[in-house]
Amino acid sequence: MSTIQHLINGDLVSSGDRTADVFNPSTGQAIRKLQLASRETVQLAIDAAKAAFPAWRKTPAAKRAQVMFRFKQLLEQNEAKIAQMISEEHGKTLEDAAGELKRGIENVEFACAAPEVLKGEYSRNVGPNIDAWSDFQPLGIVAGITPFNFPAMVPLWMYPLAIVCGNCFILKPSERDPSSTLYIAQLLLEAGLPAGVLNVVHGDKVAVDALIEAPEVKALSFVGSTPIAEYIYSEGTRRGKRVQALGGAKNHAVLMPDADLDNAVSALMGAAYGSCGERCMAISVAVCVGDQVADALVAKLTPQIKSLKIGAGTSCGLDMGPLVTAQARDKVSGYVDDGEQAGAKLVVDGRGLSVSGNEEGFFLGGCLFDHVTPQMRIYKEEIFGPVLCIVRVESLEQAMQLINDHEYGNGTCIFTRDGEAARLFCDEIEVGMVGVNVPLPVPVAYHSFGGWKRSLFGDLHAYGPDGVRFYTRRKAITQRWPQRASHEASQFAFPSL
Amino acid sequence: MSTIQHLINGDLVSSGDRTADVFNPSTGQAIRKLQLASRETVQLAIDAAKAAFPAWRKTPAAKRAQVMFRFKQLLEQNEAKIAQMISEEHGKTLEDAAGELKRGIENVEFACAAPEVLKGEYSRNVGPNIDAWSDFQPLGIVAGITPFNFPAMVPLWMYPLAIVCGNCFILKPSERDPSSTLYIAQLLLEAGLPAGVLNVVHGDKVAVDALIEAPEVKALSFVGSTPIAEYIYSEGTRRGKRVQALGGAKNHAVLMPDADLDNAVSALMGAAYGSCGERCMAISVAVCVGDQVADALVAKLTPQIKSLKIGAGTSCGLDMGPLVTAQARDKVSGYVDDGEQAGAKLVVDGRGLSVSGNEEGFFLGGCLFDHVTPQMRIYKEEIFGPVLCIVRVESLEQAMQLINDHEYGNGTCIFTRDGEAARLFCDEIEVGMVGVNVPLPVPVAYHSFGGWKRSLFGDLHAYGPDGVRFYTRRKAITQRWPQRASHEASQFAFPSL
Amino acid sequence: MSTIQHLINGDLVSSGDRTADVFNPSTGQAIRKLQLASRETVQLAIDAAKAAFPAWRKTPAAKRAQVMFRFKQLLEQNEAKIAQMISEEHGKTLEDAAGELKRGIENVEFACAAPEVLKGEYSRNVGPNIDAWSDFQPLGIVAGITPFNFPAMVPLWMYPLAIVCGNCFILKPSERDPSSTLYIAQLLLEAGLPAGVLNVVHGDKVAVDALIEAPEVKALSFVGSTPIAEYIYSEGTRRGKRVQALGGAKNHAVLMPDADLDNAVSALMGAAYGSCGERCMAISVAVCVGDQVADALVAKLTPQIKSLKIGAGTSCGLDMGPLVTAQARDKVSGYVDDGEQAGAKLVVDGRGLSVSGNEEGFFLGGCLFDHVTPQMRIYKEEIFGPVLCIVRVESLEQAMQLINDHEYGNGTCIFTRDGEAARLFCDEIEVGMVGVNVPLPVPVAYHSFGGWKRSLFGDLHAYGPDGVRFYTRRKAITQRWPQRASHEASQFAFPSL
Amino acid sequence: MSTIQHLINGDLVSSGDRTADVFNPSTGQAIRKLQLASRETVQLAIDAAKAAFPAWRKTPAAKRAQVMFRFKQLLEQNEAKIAQMISEEHGKTLEDAAGELKRGIENVEFACAAPEVLKGEYSRNVGPNIDAWSDFQPLGIVAGITPFNFPAMVPLWMYPLAIVCGNCFILKPSERDPSSTLYIAQLLLEAGLPAGVLNVVHGDKVAVDALIEAPEVKALSFVGSTPIAEYIYSEGTRRGKRVQALGGAKNHAVLMPDADLDNAVSALMGAAYGSCGERCMAISVAVCVGDQVADALVAKLTPQIKSLKIGAGTSCGLDMGPLVTAQARDKVSGYVDDGEQAGAKLVVDGRGLSVSGNEEGFFLGGCLFDHVTPQMRIYKEEIFGPVLCIVRVESLEQAMQLINDHEYGNGTCIFTRDGEAARLFCDEIEVGMVGVNVPLPVPVAYHSFGGWKRSLFGDLHAYGPDGVRFYTRRKAITQRWPQRASHEASQFAFPSL
Repeated sequence: MSTIQHLINGDLVSSGDRTADVFNPSTGQAIRKLQLASRETVQLAIDAAKAAFPAWRKTPAAKRAQVMFRFKQLLEQNEAKIAQMISEEHGKTLEDAAGELKRGIENVEFACAAPEVLKGEYSRNVGPNIDAWSDFQPLGIVAGITPFNFPAMVPLWMYPLAIVCGNCFILKPSERDPSSTLYIAQLLLEAGLPAGVLNVVHGDKVAVDALIEAPEVKALSFVGSTPIAEYIYSEGTRRGKRVQALGGAKNHAVLMPDADLDNAVSALMGAAYGSCGERCMAISVAVCVGDQVADALVAKLTPQIKSLKIGAGTSCGLDMGPLVTAQARDKVSGYVDDGEQAGAKLVVDGRGLSVSGNEEGFFLGGCLFDHVTPQMRIYKEEIFGPVLCIVRVESLEQAMQLINDHEYGNGTCIFTRDGEAARLFCDEIEVGMVGVNVPLPVPVAYHSFGGWKRSLFGDLHAYGPDGVRFYTRRKAITQRWPQRASHEASQFAFPSL
Repeated sequence: MSTIQHLINGDLVSSGDRTADVFNPSTGQAIRKLQLASRETVQLAIDAAKAAFPAWRKTPAAKRAQVMFRFKQLLEQNEAKIAQMISEEHGKTLEDAAGELKRGIENVEFACAAPEVLKGEYSRNVGPNIDAWSDFQPLGIVAGITPFNFPAMVPLWMYPLAIVCGNCFILKPSERDPSSTLYIAQLLLEAGLPAGVLNVVHGDKVAVDALIEAPEVKALSFVGSTPIAEYIYSEGTRRGKRVQALGGAKNHAVLMPDADLDNAVSALMGAAYGSCGERCMAISVAVCVGDQVADALVAKLTPQIKSLKIGAGTSCGLDMGPLVTAQARDKVSGYVDDGEQAGAKLVVDGRGLSVSGNEEGFFLGGCLFDHVTPQMRIYKEEIFGPVLCIVRVESLEQAMQLINDHEYGNGTCIFTRDGEAARLFCDEIEVGMVGVNVPLPVPVAYHSFGGWKRSLFGDLHAYGPDGVRFYTRRKAITQRWPQRASHEASQFAFPSL
Repeated sequence: MSTIQHLINGDLVSSGDRTADVFNPSTGQAIRKLQLASRETVQLAIDAAKAAFPAWRKTPAAKRAQVMFRFKQLLEQNEAKIAQMISEEHGKTLEDAAGELKRGIENVEFACAAPEVLKGEYSRNVGPNIDAWSDFQPLGIVAGITPFNFPAMVPLWMYPLAIVCGNCFILKPSERDPSSTLYIAQLLLEAGLPAGVLNVVHGDKVAVDALIEAPEVKALSFVGSTPIAEYIYSEGTRRGKRVQALGGAKNHAVLMPDADLDNAVSALMGAAYGSCGERCMAISVAVCVGDQVADALVAKLTPQIKSLKIGAGTSCGLDMGPLVTAQARDKVSGYVDDGEQAGAKLVVDGRGLSVSGNEEGFFLGGCLFDHVTPQMRIYKEEIFGPVLCIVRVESLEQAMQLINDHEYGNGTCIFTRDGEAARLFCDEIEVGMVGVNVPLPVPVAYHSFGGWKRSLFGDLHAYGPDGVRFYTRRKAITQRWPQRASHEASQFAFPSL
Repeated sequence: MSTIQHLINGDLVSSGDRTADVFNPSTGQAIRKLQLASRETVQLAIDAAKAAFPAWRKTPAAKRAQVMFRFKQLLEQNEAKIAQMISEEHGKTLEDAAGELKRGIENVEFACAAPEVLKGEYSRNVGPNIDAWSDFQPLGIVAGITPFNFPAMVPLWMYPLAIVCGNCFILKPSERDPSSTLYIAQLLLEAGLPAGVLNVVHGDKVAVDALIEAPEVKALSFVGSTPIAEYIYSEGTRRGKRVQALGGAKNHAVLMPDADLDNAVSALMGAAYGSCGERCMAISVAVCVGDQVADALVAKLTPQIKSLKIGAGTSCGLDMGPLVTAQARDKVSGYVDDGEQAGAKLVVDGRGLSVSGNEEGFFLGGCLFDHVTPQMRIYKEEIFGPVLCIVRVESLEQAMQLINDHEYGNGTCIFTRDGEAARLFCDEIEVGMVGVNVPLPVPVAYHSFGGWKRSLFGDLHAYGPDGVRFYTRRKAITQRWPQRASHEASQFAFPSL
């Protein structure tokens, strides 16, 4: 069984004997060992980054972007290989893995626009013969901590942009499915990135805490669950760092009576069950306005959920693979038990699914609850599994109140043909990412990704224009040149120009 | 003796019997009582803001800006009165107070541009017939905590912009000189702001903690000392708020051998001794490149410092008034003692100054130290008084290293005629606001204000474009409309457009 | 009878004995004489502008904006007086005149944002130690030629922005209703504009040609009819000037079967008959999708058109005043004759209207044609009067084809509740300004105004961000400083950084 | 001898028997035939573009950008081949040709940022429940006419950006050196551009006039001499097109007494003699402030000019190749004759140069004139050859007056160490592109290229942000949705929101 190493200063290095198993969730078997970083390992990465920073900072943005252009090429050339790596360790289908990678590559494309998006603001004559400009300079060393559910995409949200802005980066990927993440980082070095500018350290809380505590690390980007997001945000900010920490979600889809139901059902199937619901943008609640919509929705969903094609992610033509771990599978099953006990109507029960030939895999079939109420745990908490809850309301206003009362505010969508309903929803819903007839409104790379309320901690959203601002610090310069042969009196009063 | 009340929901209200004295530092006499808010007072303000928010949020930005246009007029009409109020409680000269107000009004002017600066980003066809846009929406209730040294300007950095972005605001001004702050807030109501959109609560740590802990308060802006800035940043962020906390400073001016020394001396006199050095952008260290520059500088500064015109701030034609409190005066004196003991050469000693007719005022004359070294407390700590330290170095590189090694990074400047030196300094100095031959490089209102390192905690600088981003949250909308008579298949893979 | 003079270099001046009569269209009487400029008069204005330019150009944008802040105040203080002046010479109602002025003031507000909107772009390190920035500098002297239909608003589209960008301006207003235009210009001088920065010359083709031919005039803005717009565009560009020339329109409103018909009828009444249809954004064609919509529309419009309250513009509570001249009234009447002869069904006939007490006024009642076809002159040409034509089509696609085939492309709108229809319309209609359930989609001042096809000649639209670009020229600076003690070899190959 | 064909609708096509010879200027031999388009050929290209437009317009910008990413790769892979093609037909050295291509590729990189740079502006609630946005849509068919001196770079300034904005393009390259231009266009098709989106027609005035007159062509970009630029600008605008036409130049370098003379000399050698001076940004005048600078400059330049390595462009290690044609060489020689007769001092005479082995090539050695005065033809006119003129002045102000009085205003630069001098120069010089110690201040691709005065006709500069605006038309949408159960009254007055 091979051992996955850290990538520090351009080299693969080992950190000692602490390791964790990496599983293939489709077979339930451990397939690799993963080195877990000690504090010393993390410090090695920090030292490498620190050494690389001065030269990288001085490299013109247009030259830094050249590395990203080549990186995009390499990612495209290795798409099939990467999808296979993702699928093997995460369990998602190959198509899904390829889709994730594609969205990640979009972020590399945005990073290629560095010379444009890093432009500062220039004002001639803010006062007589005084000019002022604002420049956006890199922070130094920044770090990212990323989740298992998008081992390719979420790291690509972070480091291409951070690096093209002139920073050096330390990435701590998920310990569940690190192989694709590491491989992609190696491709960036192959694309010409100087050693030390990007470093990958694998690990657990030891590594996370080392990154939080290191004074050299100026900023932290995190994507994961809300409790950890809050921990990272408060511990990081307490040490004076800037932090953006993206947490959990409970994304509602509102179905209006005028919705195009067939298309909405298709959209919901993918958004609720794709990747086993292990997406922070997955739709886990369908809010039906009127019983008529709800009844029709249940009728149309039920057979489709029952006929979901489920199997090993690396097989072809599937709709869903396994959950990522046995614990995750059991936790989701537990939620289904809980929902039943709380009185929700379990329309489709995916528990106990056995996939022939992969009996040890961490599989669970699609589940559908109707008549879910806001008091139930299955409504209040993030399940992160293939479970869709239907809540019935009587008006758009009720639907919106429900959503606005939920502690999370990541994504949401509305299915309607009506301009007024869509506009009201977009304006007043307290959610950061909103879809109109778009079930998974993940913003394109040149906009920015971020939830509201307890789904994101920090001022700035991830990637896109907000990402640029997050990974740079503003410097304001005010300049005048002494006029020969003029003498100026002291000005003791506060100067206005 | 009159009592200064809170401004809540458009009314002046009292909070009980906890009060503090407000002094005239020029006479040393208590001249007013100030109500100190309880937690209940703060909650009243929060309730008022909460009630006002829905209608204010829906008011078009262009209409919100109308209030700011009228506010600017009222501020200009009442300039003399406001300057008098500032000077009486703070001690700074009338000219200085008027200068502060003028810079504050600039921020109101920037707020008048709300319709322009609040524009979101729109992308047609991010995918086939799919459009996306990003909108910047208000946060809800936000609060500001402001220092004594700019009772007019610093609050005006915050609430005009926060309010014109659609938020409701709670301001806790300094308890030392609250009268002008309160009066200016009343002018905004007179300009047409609906009751409850801006509230002013006076107080101490009780009020501050109530604001930090209130879940309804979504963001905190702070300007003050670094220890408090850190406290507010970590306590606020720990509760999931966004916080920008501006702290202390130690601003260096570098004098190059080719500097226009006469003009540099004039500039330094104002920047070091104006407002008694009680400015976060005051120059407190002059770094001379070469002994020749240092000797000449000392020779030129000495007589000017000795002839500073010092008296009651409300008198005319003065250079400096008193310090804000007896404690502040004594603390600064203590630093002068400490510098002497540490071996710095005290060239001009301002201790023991007595101003005729105002013998009880909190006066201190200008002080000048030469041969200061980086190990001394007078170099390392923020003195916040009329004390200038000269440090001698041998090269620009040494000067820059010194500055980059200091824990603060608020402002700095260089005096030179040389383009190469200025460019190197602007590029590599680790300070947020940089002047080239400009001693107090406070950015104009349409750029943004912020230090680096331990001078600012948070991602975004104050006012200007960064202020807009701080006082809004990004919402990303992705929209498509169902095409009649088309049927779409479910997409289980992660969607790329 | 008083004589209206030119405003040159801050003074009212006369130009000789060429004059024109200015009428009150409500009474049909000449009420004032207007001086008509000779070439020499225009040259005087040019000379004044030329002399004023160097100092104005150097005045910081923030200071230039102060004049605009005061200008806004003066306009608001004099609103009633200005509305009266507009109404008396143009004939439109007081409410309409006040509405026009309000939209004009919005453009002054946008000009107040000059420091923000004039920001250039700054790039550090475009190459090693090489910085680049783009600055937007004024052109010098620019001129505007404006139409009778908005004597307050259209000039305010132009000169506040041109002037705040640092240019000097020569305005040639309409000779029909120049009094309000002149008065408003005088208010800008009262607001503190230096003499010579804004000059007003009245006149006819002599003045226009003098402006076109003068080499000192760097740019021309024009709003009027398409033949004159084309003349100005080709004659101005032929002399190397930049020109934006806005011409005629034929604005279609599409009524979909799902439109909210009552509200659409209200909207159409105002958009078709307000200001007698003498607006380049007036709706002159209603395109009904389906006979059912058309029949219902005719039924609802007919009584409302017949009960329009028409009288002297300066009276209160009216819907419509007279047309601007007897010639204009007769021309519109002629179009009604022509439409009848061509076979359109004249549902409401406004010809021959006599207003009691104002029998000599240039009145015409509202007219409605049904069953208009694209071949008719009343469809093809701009009538610029209170005449609405109904065209019947069978689908949205047909409606859009009709609009896209018309030579004009100024404004259009669609009435629907349907998101898909609105989106298709907005995306594919070849018209510059599009309303969705908004009948007169005149962009707010912080967007820009402009039609497509033969409604606008030039690259850049009027006012807003495009206006800033039009009134400035880009200067690109690339800067490096020689590194002491380094020697560079000659580079004969084309440099890439 | 092979014949170069047109590229229309993805195919190489012939146009009949009108042809021109293409020469190798290093040997003086005709090496290929070039088809010259008839009006019918141009119409074929227009028809192809028209057919391709609807689908290309609808292709999302991010997808259009993918073609540009691949185009960049193909250009880089074929760099040596393209440089060879350029050099063979133009005569410039291989290094110079590679440099040109590199700068062209930068423009392709900027085009890759299309999703970012095409973003429109979005305003929620411009009025109650009314939203507005501005979208930038393609024009349709646009054309470019490009000069011989940069057969790779100048076309790449135009069509990648025009095309990525959604337009279809017709390119008429120079008839002198069309091979590389055509080959590069073919690479774009190979990169995946749909047939018809880019078409190349070779030709002379017949083709140019056909493009000017075709109503389907909405915009023209031109780079060449000023007389032709004026012709295209006035003839194109007269037909309602938008046109940007870049013309001639006379670029001055100012040498201040404090300039780093050795580096300035190196810079001038490349800027004056590189590519035989056949660049619109070549430095052709050196303005020396003070005789001391002038004398030193002449002394240092003279031996370097005399030892320029001149030969066939396709050879290695050269400084200069031949001029493009015998006529060009003779014209430049004529200017040298004229300068001598006018009394300028010919310090180095490059006439009569014979290159061994290439005796028939169109060679001319580097020439240097001292004591040139503003009245001389060699000062007033663009020579476009390896001739540098020295003008002596006494102050920076005189130098600037000289430059500001010249009819051209393309590029200029100043050599100094002094911040004040550089700032004054940058602010007040009436030239579009300014270098500080940068001899050829061609803006990087993410800024924009353009001269002032008679060096550019049009409002918008080439490529970069201005290019985006030039190749798109603004559409302003204002949207509200009818509120159910509300009734609105007609508004006859002009609406303010």
